Amino acid sequence: MRVGVIGGGQLARMMIPPAVALGVELRVLAEVEGSSAALAATAVGDYRDAETVLAFAADVDVVTFDHEHVPQDVLDRLVASGVAVHPGPHALAVAQDKTVMRERLSAIGAPVPDWARVADAAELGAFLDAHGGVAVVKTPRGGYDGKGVRVVREASAADDWFADATDGLLVEEFVPFRRELAQLVARRPSGEVRAWPLVETVQRDGVCAEVFAPAPHAGELPTEARALAERIASELDVTGVLAVELFEAEDGRLLVNELAMRPHNTGHWTIDGAITSQFEQHLRAVLDLPLGETGPLAPVSVMVNILGGPSGERMPDRYARAMADRPEVKLHSYGKESRPGRKVGHVTAKGRELDDVVARARAAAAFFQD
Amino acid sequence: MRVGVIGGGQLARMMIPPAVALGVELRVLAEVEGSSAALAATAVGDYRDAETVLAFAADVDVVTFDHEHVPQDVLDRLVASGVAVHPGPHALAVAQDKTVMRERLSAIGAPVPDWARVADAAELGAFLDAHGGVAVVKTPRGGYDGKGVRVVREASAADDWFADATDGLLVEEFVPFRRELAQLVARRPSGEVRAWPLVETVQRDGVCAEVFAPAPHAGELPTEARALAERIASELDVTGVLAVELFEAEDGRLLVNELAMRPHNTGHWTIDGAITSQFEQHLRAVLDLPLGETGPLAPVSVMVNILGGPSGERMPDRYARAMADRPEVKLHSYGKESRPGRKVGHVTAKGRELDDVVARARAAAAFFQD
Repeated sequence: MRVGVIGGGQLARMMIPPAVALGVELRVLAEVEGSSAALAATAVGDYRDAETVLAFAADVDVVTFDHEHVPQDVLDRLVASGVAVHPGPHALAVAQDKTVMRERLSAIGAPVPDWARVADAAELGAFLDAHGGVAVVKTPRGGYDGKGVRVVREASAADDWFADATDGLLVEEFVPFRRELAQLVARRPSGEVRAWPLVETVQRDGVCAEVFAPAPHAGELPTEARALAERIASELDVTGVLAVELFEAEDGRLLVNELAMRPHNTGHWTIDGAITSQFEQHLRAVLDLPLGETGPLAPVSVMVNILGGPSGERMPDRYARAMADRPEVKLHSYGKESRPGRKVGHVTAKGRELDDVVARARAAAAFFQD
Repeated sequence: MRVGVIGGGQLARMMIPPAVALGVELRVLAEVEGSSAALAATAVGDYRDAETVLAFAADVDVVTFDHEHVPQDVLDRLVASGVAVHPGPHALAVAQDKTVMRERLSAIGAPVPDWARVADAAELGAFLDAHGGVAVVKTPRGGYDGKGVRVVREASAADDWFADATDGLLVEEFVPFRRELAQLVARRPSGEVRAWPLVETVQRDGVCAEVFAPAPHAGELPTEARALAERIASELDVTGVLAVELFEAEDGRLLVNELAMRPHNTGHWTIDGAITSQFEQHLRAVLDLPLGETGPLAPVSVMVNILGGPSGERMPDRYARAMADRPEVKLHSYGKESRPGRKVGHVTAKGRELDDVVARARAAAAFFQD
């Protein structure tokens, strides 16, 4: 069983442990030497170059991804050459372009914020007029971790983006929300789908900061979110892990914010907190193996991201104090050089009471902040 | 943080996942290409050759082991060259020679079966006469998984071994036991020790077959076993994981059977069943980092070994049925060619009731037997 992963970031890195356990030979096409997933990197090259990707894929059983940026023409050539690609190009097309995502989600009746594709400031102004004078503008492609997203109150506020936007921009209703949630599911080509518990996510500056599993005080939301994510996975023919980022709006609506078709930051808690982690499940799914149970290992799990700070000190250099103080917390380093704001690791704590678990996870994470 | 592991077997392999999580760079000196730990193998060579080992150790922070067979003169040269070696040569000397082990355990007052070093059949006969006509003879060095161990009832029954035994043979009282137990602890150079729950182990043909964690109906035994193992670790200056294999004798005595100074088959359940696995703890210990909590993740964990059968079929080729039937059981493949009787993997199940968990683990393992 050989799985080829395009992209050498921390998501590819975190596939290594379950690959070792399952006897899966993981091969990574990394962008650079010394990537986060360097241990499994068998090739270094440009994922936008079809020849590079085809050569990498020649002796693996299935190709999957650390990110969603492989161009459609490269994906199409992979499929044409007979390589199994999961998720496939048609599914990935939806994750690659936020306007396409809105179109497809609307087409299948999934609840989304009001949205429009706008070609210029005049169209943006009309959308603002119809939505109380505030909206969210997004570049359809290339955004992540808050980049390419802007709250606007004036028709001219996206003029700099319109200049480069050949397909226009996506504009959405500004949704006042109680909180953000995420529903992760995995789906295999033969159709089996399994869902993890619905989680609450806390974003800071557009970046995932903390995840509480399960989402507390959620009432009927888990049932609704699970059905929604399972339907999206099936309708869009997603294979592997699908992350559905959600708003719980102040008016009570559950709305789809974003989709990601790969393991996702909001699922890192599953490494230590669920029977089957998102990384093991992704491997099982793309290999079309039966999926594992997704139940939790503790009543509450909390994940806190570690972002690089100004000191540039690496996570492991601070282990002694963190481990002595919190011997029950699981530490994860991504093996990356620390830069301000860069995700360089995470911690996960488990327990019975949310307040206690949050406090312990934050205390452990605090040893890595400066 | 670079840890060098001498030996490329499944114990080195199972150190890879926690090394990835902690950002530890693991480097393995394997015996052969394509070893179980090949993913982390940075060198292939003979661990009995000092130059090979010294070259391997030149750029790691600490050297540790997949097995206990590195000769003392090689270990001494490593230490003399300034390399940190954990466990150290003096501790390993006790694990390498069963007669030395008995001498040291007796010297520190640890409970062991009656024993003697015997030079010939006459001395063996005298021991038999003094112990009811039955005893266990062991070759002091090189035995494992039941090899080098023989129950004897006649003085001549070890003549073939005496011929090669320059230091004599070890003979021990035959201990009728209720069951076998194992107590694992980890100790770091600065002295901290942590113990996992006492487990019951079931051996078949001298090979570990099943482990029940915690040992059921154990009364005061866990307290006794833990104190004993912690004392052995400290008195023998063991660093890293120490496994103490124990007999619960029919007369109620708790006796030390064997010691292993490395992660051990009886601790594989900790990967899925404990807050900190024996493999993560071993890395933390040899790096002299604070140790992790060792509590269980479920009331009961059961590990069942997978031994190669006559078909030679590899574990992953049977995943589809096993995973479909037992989606909650964790499967571990060692990436080894299957040969009859060879340990090629294990499964771990968790739950509340021992009978149920044993049944589920055995059911999963049965998919890999033939």
